[in-house]
Amino acid sequence: MEWINKSRVVIVGLGLIGGSYAKALKRMGYTISAIDKDPETIKYAVENNIIDDGLTENYGELLEKADCIIIALYPGLITDWIKENQRFFKPGIRITDVTGVKSSFIYEVQDILREDVEFIAAHPMAGREVCGVKNSDDRIFRNANYIVVPTKKNTDAAIVWCEHLGKILGFDRVSVLTPEEHDEMIAFVSQLTHCIAVSLMTCNNDTHLKDYTGDSFRDLTRIARINENMWSELFLVNKEPLLRQMNSFINELEEMKHMLETDDAEGLKEKMRRSTNRRIQFDKEQ
Amino acid sequence: MEWINKSRVVIVGLGLIGGSYAKALKRMGYTISAIDKDPETIKYAVENNIIDDGLTENYGELLEKADCIIIALYPGLITDWIKENQRFFKPGIRITDVTGVKSSFIYEVQDILREDVEFIAAHPMAGREVCGVKNSDDRIFRNANYIVVPTKKNTDAAIVWCEHLGKILGFDRVSVLTPEEHDEMIAFVSQLTHCIAVSLMTCNNDTHLKDYTGDSFRDLTRIARINENMWSELFLVNKEPLLRQMNSFINELEEMKHMLETDDAEGLKEKMRRSTNRRIQFDKEQ
Repeated sequence: MEWINKSRVVIVGLGLIGGSYAKALKRMGYTISAIDKDPETIKYAVENNIIDDGLTENYGELLEKADCIIIALYPGLITDWIKENQRFFKPGIRITDVTGVKSSFIYEVQDILREDVEFIAAHPMAGREVCGVKNSDDRIFRNANYIVVPTKKNTDAAIVWCEHLGKILGFDRVSVLTPEEHDEMIAFVSQLTHCIAVSLMTCNNDTHLKDYTGDSFRDLTRIARINENMWSELFLVNKEPLLRQMNSFINELEEMKHMLETDDAEGLKEKMRRSTNRRIQFDKEQ
Repeated sequence: MEWINKSRVVIVGLGLIGGSYAKALKRMGYTISAIDKDPETIKYAVENNIIDDGLTENYGELLEKADCIIIALYPGLITDWIKENQRFFKPGIRITDVTGVKSSFIYEVQDILREDVEFIAAHPMAGREVCGVKNSDDRIFRNANYIVVPTKKNTDAAIVWCEHLGKILGFDRVSVLTPEEHDEMIAFVSQLTHCIAVSLMTCNNDTHLKDYTGDSFRDLTRIARINENMWSELFLVNKEPLLRQMNSFINELEEMKHMLETDDAEGLKEKMRRSTNRRIQFDKEQ
């Protein structure tokens, strides 16, 4: 389908991100159905006008009406869900996802997918420290990045369609990366930062932090409040890039330790100047 | 002196913090003189009514009138400044400071200090990513911590007086720590966080970050914009505690790496749950 109002979008998995997609798309005039394993989630979303209708099982007929399917499941569930349900897909539809890692499943999904439909991967780089449809909020897409992640199997038309979806959802910046570029980038800007925040929060047992911390500790640990099921899975399926980024960060810290141990004030200053210049450049680019 | 309006306070070193002290105290009715090596700084501060008067040299007479002296110099300069200028101090006055590390100089300062005056150390845990009197702003003290750092030489009266100063300046929380407790705490909540931010900013050469980063990277690198002269000195004089905290943080990251390498999902989840619980507790305590 093209992005024409009144199309029917089916969202599979109505959590924080699925719910936020529903809110953004419903406001733009699309008809939104949802599939979720939890009846309370569907009930809440219908009652609060987040979706038009939804089911927890026997949703073949609902899928048959879908002009587009957005899969907002954990990465490990996507392939099996498609295997079981693709017989219901209308010919020619496009399927996309919201997953934070790509290489681990995208090639397999495209391999097993029916020839007459297309899966185009995307990563909405938005989130909150809370989860579930009750916390969904499409304002999280503002000032955020939306990455379309095509493989060689994808058509140019599907890439353009998916970029269009990012804009409809309200993302500020929409860009395109290969699965490998995406996973390395995400290992750095998102997964490494979460590893750091978690480690900083757990490496010290002082329970009287509140009397002493300033903004810096608060900033660095905001994301230490983390959905452990989702993030442990994301880390493990993106293990190689994440380990590379962790090692490069640890090397940098070890270099700083060495400068301290050898009283290398000039080395420390040089590193701090580089850091300051990059951060100033980064602020300018925002 | 007690904290009675119309007392004359002399601030030595009119940078970001010295200037912010001046603004807060002047608003409360104190007479503020400043000493700074830069004539432009004094000129700007007088013209903008941040201080009543100030000098760059030959300031003996100005010091003779001081009811209280606040030293806002880099830690390495404090002992020498006191050696050179304490002959001008009015008997019975109290001297305090704003330095971010304490053990490295406090004992020496108290050893060389005249018997009839008292030096009581304090650390205002506030700052900005910019420096200089032009960026001074006493609103940075709101929601911030003020730590009084007495040694065994200090009198109870001076400790109470210094706590009172913290409240006058507008700090939310005022507490008391020994120099060793203070330096270990600061190595963790402030210096380690700055090491992390700098290392995160310098460990990757990708100049196209802006298209991909979310709030987490922005949060973790805000403090990567850093005054290299001040922070390299603070790090080096607090080397032992900082190296201890860096090692404990790196150990935590190495543990996480090992969990990734061995596909230990349960270990990762347990660590994330601990991190989440601590951060929730931390938010409650704010």
